[in-house]
Formats: sequence, structure tokens, C-alpha cells
Amino acid sequence: MLPIITLTTDFGTHDSYVGVMKGVMLSICPQARLIDITHEIAPQNIAAAARVLEQIGPYFPPHTIHLVVVDPGVGSERQPIALATPQGQYVGPNNGVFGQVWQAAQARWSPTVVQAVVLTEPRYWMPEVSATFHGRDIFAPVAAHLAGGTALEALGPPLTTIQQALLAEPVWETPDRLCGKIVAIDHFGNCISNISTALLKQLGPRPTLTATFAVRTGEAAGHMLSLALRRTYADVPSGTILSLVGSNGYLELAVRDGNASQICGVTIGDEVRVQRL
Amino acid sequence: MLPIITLTTDFGTHDSYVGVMKGVMLSICPQARLIDITHEIAPQNIAAAARVLEQIGPYFPPHTIHLVVVDPGVGSERQPIALATPQGQYVGPNNGVFGQVWQAAQARWSPTVVQAVVLTEPRYWMPEVSATFHGRDIFAPVAAHLAGGTALEALGPPLTTIQQALLAEPVWETPDRLCGKIVAIDHFGNCISNISTALLKQLGPRPTLTATFAVRTGEAAGHMLSLALRRTYADVPSGTILSLVGSNGYLELAVRDGNASQICGVTIGDEVRVQRL
Amino acid sequence: MLPIITLTTDFGTHDSYVGVMKGVMLSICPQARLIDITHEIAPQNIAAAARVLEQIGPYFPPHTIHLVVVDPGVGSERQPIALATPQGQYVGPNNGVFGQVWQAAQARWSPTVVQAVVLTEPRYWMPEVSATFHGRDIFAPVAAHLAGGTALEALGPPLTTIQQALLAEPVWETPDRLCGKIVAIDHFGNCISNISTALLKQLGPRPTLTATFAVRTGEAAGHMLSLALRRTYADVPSGTILSLVGSNGYLELAVRDGNASQICGVTIGDEVRVQRL
Repeated sequence: MLPIITLTTDFGTHDSYVGVMKGVMLSICPQARLIDITHEIAPQNIAAAARVLEQIGPYFPPHTIHLVVVDPGVGSERQPIALATPQGQYVGPNNGVFGQVWQAAQARWSPTVVQAVVLTEPRYWMPEVSATFHGRDIFAPVAAHLAGGTALEALGPPLTTIQQALLAEPVWETPDRLCGKIVAIDHFGNCISNISTALLKQLGPRPTLTATFAVRTGEAAGHMLSLALRRTYADVPSGTILSLVGSNGYLELAVRDGNASQICGVTIGDEVRVQRL
Repeated sequence: MLPIITLTTDFGTHDSYVGVMKGVMLSICPQARLIDITHEIAPQNIAAAARVLEQIGPYFPPHTIHLVVVDPGVGSERQPIALATPQGQYVGPNNGVFGQVWQAAQARWSPTVVQAVVLTEPRYWMPEVSATFHGRDIFAPVAAHLAGGTALEALGPPLTTIQQALLAEPVWETPDRLCGKIVAIDHFGNCISNISTALLKQLGPRPTLTATFAVRTGEAAGHMLSLALRRTYADVPSGTILSLVGSNGYLELAVRDGNASQICGVTIGDEVRVQRL
Repeated sequence: MLPIITLTTDFGTHDSYVGVMKGVMLSICPQARLIDITHEIAPQNIAAAARVLEQIGPYFPPHTIHLVVVDPGVGSERQPIALATPQGQYVGPNNGVFGQVWQAAQARWSPTVVQAVVLTEPRYWMPEVSATFHGRDIFAPVAAHLAGGTALEALGPPLTTIQQALLAEPVWETPDRLCGKIVAIDHFGNCISNISTALLKQLGPRPTLTATFAVRTGEAAGHMLSLALRRTYADVPSGTILSLVGSNGYLELAVRDGNASQICGVTIGDEVRVQRL
């Protein structure tokens, strides 16, 4: 089976940084298949990278290696690490990007199959290591060596403390009301909250729930809007504001065939409340 | 021969949506080669997706599978479909994205080798199908199964009505004059019309033709500009406005080493007339 | 070993141009692995393409073929060419994009292993060659034929004059002071100069050097800022302006966790001076 390495970075795509890492990996492991996930993580946004990793992990074959370079602390004392779970291996900085993957894996599998190591073995790195680009000099070479069959244990000693990204958690304001936050705006302008399907189920059956948020722009600016929870965008006419559980399993605000963030003036950090009637 | 799956979506590249679909496909068909065409189709722009598909199809090997997810009607009654032509197989929603590919194939080949089916067999889908992301739950798995050798017929019953995208057609205003529209602005700012080489040939020999359009910005704003048809950008000095037949076979307005859309204020929907002298 | 073809263009990713070239290459050499470097070279920016090529070349396996299509002179008399060095093969227009790769290769290796040819053999091109898209009609097919094993010599006669990109060179203003220019702004807003590590070494030991540039925006607008040379971003607190040698080996101005170009109003063409104390 051909090894697969995915790439998730905040490098953008107009410089040579991504290309350089691809070259490094193909030089070490020529048979590796390189799969771009995204290079558009907002610069230094560790929480956004953590969310993307959490979302893609379950869909890739278990032998996949996920390379993650969102690394504002490059050259400081943050550790370079690698992780192995039954759902894939991960290489990158210990700065929170692997927080959710690690927590989910620890909750789901036995500790014998969920492991982490600090990268301390320079023989798996580039011969010279810069202070500014560990993606090229440490992470890409290590990912390629894993792809080529190097065992996780060979890369360095075990590690037990995996940094968590600082993620807003929804708050129960009353037993009937949950207050969450918008944590991402996707390419379509959908405003994705941190309120999961699991939390919604605790609150009550979906037909009994309404989502409330503040409209900031347009005619309704300054008003609160309360919405029933819909099944899909096409349940409402074009141009209509709706709320629904999106494909990643979180409550979102959307506008059918439109950009909810722009139309409603909703942005990251805004509150959303879900209430049982 | 390694199977090839191309990806054309309006998902952008900063979310996890594209990565998730790649994971789904590699889990089902690990040997498939995934080729990004574009994820920058304007949100819900079915006509733009149809044009891209029409343009790339002839250049790929005939065993290629083209996955297309521009799907504003996800979760509604629009059908999920797959097509086979001697030039490739196609998977996506029956909302117009395959209109031009289908018409061209029907005009060119016998009905026995141009086939379409409705996707009705859940065994080729993800175990759970959401109402919001058929790209992940239906289209990507089906594309991967086709790549793995599943026959088109196994995916569902035959279909005969393929939706067309609403595309503006040029109009003959007189036997000597054709009125078309700008239908796309490319990355360079070239303004691409819907007037094809074939129509130009009907109108007359190229040296006898002039293209006329309204300038909207700058010193010439409000004036009509009439241009001879050039062979290539380098036929005129840098900074010069010109008209020519672009590489896709359609009349376009361009500025050598410049952005014609910005310089001339020309945008999608604007009229272009071609006149025989 | 599977052949590798990298792609560097100014096509952007929202049109069909890149997809069409990928199709052409996979039709000629189905086993080729296509690696996107960037399609975001600024339109017609030959110098930017030359820099990216120079930076990625050393990291790829030596059998890699680098396809470069930044081609403002398409259809004119600029030559289509291919190059071979011990570090890779290159295909594209002879307009300066290969200037640095060629110079570096000539300086480093014997002329017997550094070769260039003009592409004159139509049997390695598309059957019809347009005047506007040699990326599709000449360069992509030639790259794919090289990937499939065609010898460089078969593509056309030898060439000895490789165009150079016009690149600003730093100037020694005094034996203690070097004046360079900002030549690129990366995705993070780091302002990258043309002053290399080698030049800095000639000037003096790093702790004795200061970099000076003009701030154009904010409170310090109109003032000169002199900075010690740091080792890495994390050497200073978040939000601090610093100067350092970046991962590509050139002096740059940066802001930790911030966008130096925006914060300081520094842009391409601005001067930077490095002085020995």
C-alpha cells in the first residue's frame, strides 16, 4: 500500500514553502503520496488547525501520516512531536494543534495504541536545522521517514503531555439553555458554532429547540433572531436565514444560496444560544 | 493503469471539506490518484462549473473519473447522478453542471457509449448520509467505487434527462453582426465571451471582423471600442487593449500584460458585438 | 521510480488552465506524479517565478521535472526551452524564469552535465499549437515526454544563451554598509530582501550588524528603524518588529505573530541597509 502524507499548514500557496516541504518528503520517501488538505489556515491560528485535523482524521485510511505546520513558536522551546493513533499518525509542533485528536483518541482507544514521542533524533531530520523553518527541517523529514516505515519509537522518547488548543466551550446558562460561540466562518459564509450534536441531544429533541443570535447588519441590525433547527439548506427558499447542524456535526447559521456571515454581520466569537421551548 | 479522479468544487481551500472528500476516496480506493482541478468555482455557480468541465474533459485520459461538487440543492430532490462517455466518467448532482458535457457527448458518440444513471444504491455510499454534504457521503464514495472498478450500471437505474445549465447564447442581430456576452473573467482579467470559433467562422474570415464593446472606466469611459481580431497577446505592445480568440476557443477581450476587466471596467454579462466589415 | 513533474504557474486556481495542463500530462505519461508548487505567482512576474524555482530545486529528487509557465511573451519569438542539471530538468519559456537555476548550475557543475535545448520538435507537442497557451500545447507535453523517458537531446538543438531575470543586486555603499532591496513579501507579511547570508558574512559577524529600514505607517511613520539581527521569530515578544535571516537564506524584516509589511508599511522595492558597528 502506498504511504499517504497529508499537508495542513498556514503557509498560503504563493511562496515556495509548501513546495520545499514536498521536495524534502519526496527525496526521502519517493513513493509517498502527498495530499494537500489546506494551506489556508489563518496565520498562526492553532485552534483552526486543530479543528481541521479533528475533522479529516476519521475519513483517511489508518496508515495515513498527517503533517501539520502551524508553528508560531518555531525556534522556541515548544517541542516537535509525533503521535500515533489507530486512525493515523501525526507530525508537528506540540502547541495545541493535536489537542483534540489526542483527547478523542485517549477517550476512545486503549493507551497501548495511542502514543506520542518527542522528536529528538536528528538522524531523521535535515542535516542542518534552521531556527525558522522546522516544517522543512524536522517535520517534513520525520513524516517522510514514518511513511518509509520508520517506527514511531525510533524518533524519540515517549511524551505524555500534549498541549491543548484554547477552545471556547459552550456554557449551560439554565438546564434549558446553552450558550455557545461562533468558532469558524467557512468559505460559503456559514457561521459554525461550538455546539455539537451531542450537546443538542442533551438539551432536547430537535423540533423543540430554537437557536438565537444577534443580527448586526442590514434592516434587522440590533435585533435578536430566533430560528427553528432545519435539516438542510434546501428546506427554505433561496435567500432565507436558517440554522441547522452542519456536516461536521456542529450547529451553524446559514443563508440558503447566500453568505450568512456577511448578510447577518455574524463573526467569530459571537454568541449563539439554543433554548428548549 | 492507476485510476485518476479529478476534483472540481466551490468549497474553497481553507476549510476541511476538500480534505474530507479526499480521505473518503482514498479509504475506498487507495490506489486512486486525486487531481485537483479547482475548488474556486464561485459559490453555487453551476454554469462556471459546467464550463470548466467542458474544457478539461478532452485533455484527460478516457479512464478518468471527474468528481464535481457544486451543489446548492443538496438535500433537496435534485438527483445524484453518474455519467459515462468515451472521454471519461462523471459524478455529481443533476443540476446543470454536466449539461455541456452531456450535450457534446450525445452529439458526438452513439447512445450506446454515452450513459447516465441515478445514484440509488446506498451500498456505494457512506453508511450514514447527511442532508448537507453529499460530496462526502454520496459523490466521493461513488467516484472511488468507479475508480475501483465498479460498473456504472451497478450504481442505479438509467437516466435520460440531464439538466442543462442556463447559458447565454449569442444572438444574430443581422447576417453581418453577432451579439454575445462576457461569461467569465479569468485570473489574468481576460474577459471571455460566449462567441465561439465556429460562430466566428460563420460570420466571415477573421481579418474582416471587428469586435466592439463598451468601455466603462478610465478616459474612454462611456465610449465604444472597436478592435481587430489579433492572433496572440504579444501581437500588440504592452498595455494595449486587444481582442482575440483565447485558448479555449472563445472570443475574449484582453490587455497585454494587464488586467482587461479592471482597465476597461468590463464584467460578466456585458455585451460584445462582432461585425463583418 | 515514478516520474515527478512539479507545476509553477501564474494561472491562479479558479480557471481550467491548470486542470487542462494536468490532463495533457497524464494522457501522455499516465504514471507521472504531478506536484503543485504554486499557481499564485503574480501575473507575468518572471522574477518571482525564478526565485521560487531556485528555492525548491535543491529539495526535490534529481529525476524531477519542473514545469514553469509564467509566459507573458507567449506567441512571440521568445524560445520554448528545456534544461537539464544534476538537480533536475526544467521546461518553460526562455524569458528569465530559469536564469538563476542556470547560473547556479553553471557555477557548480561541469558543462557536460548542465545542458539546454530549444524545443523545435513538434512530435513532442500537441498536434495543434495555439498562439496563446504554450503551457498546454508545448510545455506540458514536453514535460510529460521527459517524464516518460524521452532524452533532452531529442527535443531540439542545443542552446547556450539562457535569459536572466532582471534582479536587483545589493550595493556596497561603503566597506561597512550594504544597501539591498525588498524583493518579496511572503504570505505572513515577512519582507524578504536580496541580501544573502553570504553577503552578510562578508560584512562581519552577525552580532556586529544592524539592519535599517524606513517605517511608512503607524506612529513611527517617517522614521528609520535600526534592528539587531535575531536568530528566530520567537526570540522577541509577540508583536515585536525584528530582522533575521529567513529560511531561504536572505535577510528579512518580520513581526512576531504579525504582518510586517502591513504594520511597517514596507513593500517590494523598499531599501534595507545593513551596517557593521
